[in-house]
Amino acid sequence: MRLTSYTDFALRALIFTGAARETVTIATISAAYGISKEHLRKVVNQLAHLGYLITTQGRHGGLTLGKPAEKINLRAVVEAFETSQLAECFDKDTNTCPIDGMCKLKHALRNAQQSFLKELENYHLSDLVKNPQLQVFVRQRTG
Amino acid sequence: MRLTSYTDFALRALIFTGAARETVTIATISAAYGISKEHLRKVVNQLAHLGYLITTQGRHGGLTLGKPAEKINLRAVVEAFETSQLAECFDKDTNTCPIDGMCKLKHALRNAQQSFLKELENYHLSDLVKNPQLQVFVRQRTG
Repeated sequence: MRLTSYTDFALRALIFTGAARETVTIATISAAYGISKEHLRKVVNQLAHLGYLITTQGRHGGLTLGKPAEKINLRAVVEAFETSQLAECFDKDTNTCPIDGMCKLKHALRNAQQSFLKELENYHLSDLVKNPQLQVFVRQRTG
Repeated sequence: MRLTSYTDFALRALIFTGAARETVTIATISAAYGISKEHLRKVVNQLAHLGYLITTQGRHGGLTLGKPAEKINLRAVVEAFETSQLAECFDKDTNTCPIDGMCKLKHALRNAQQSFLKELENYHLSDLVKNPQLQVFVRQRTG
């Protein structure tokens, strides 16, 4: 069970931008984490599309949070990015398993997935960016 | 977030064998689900190694449950098969994320993963094989 790197990078981009408290660039985030700029650009575009980031153009342009960190819920971000299904039977268009409909496993897995998401609901971006070491790390890369 | 097909097939093999209540073969399970015999053989070997299945050789050989379905817990099976880590930072040997140790995301994800597994703990194989339609499906393929 693994989150996609797409979701992982989205969360990291939000954490960096949230901890920075000033405009940051894709190049800075990419260099700070050692992750592909191209991959990050796609993630940032979706975050902007969803209202989590605001992108501004120009010499002093870059990324800022699109809403307060206290309003960015971890469950909502993970649900928006994590589009893969937990098991084959969760996608009726591609499912080939013949016991779908007579198998209680799907029910059990769905409940487990809901418990996972419910737990994430307890966290907001503001909870993730408070650490002083993290703020130093970000400041050193944006200064 | 997706379970590996390895885990999915392990659960399906247990469901089929548990619903059959008689010796079944890898060929029968493979044909019933339309999944690769080779892939299934690896899964069955691990299930046998873990004590969930007993394999017997010979003309009437095949697979039976290694313990009562009431004793086969869904969490235990998923934990045994699902070796992939939820995010890069969960594996300290391969992690490259520089904010590991100062980032609370890992803590949030770990709690969510525990909630997922805790929910699965409520289910045993016996809960998954009771459906009469499932038993008809299995009987038609083993008879």
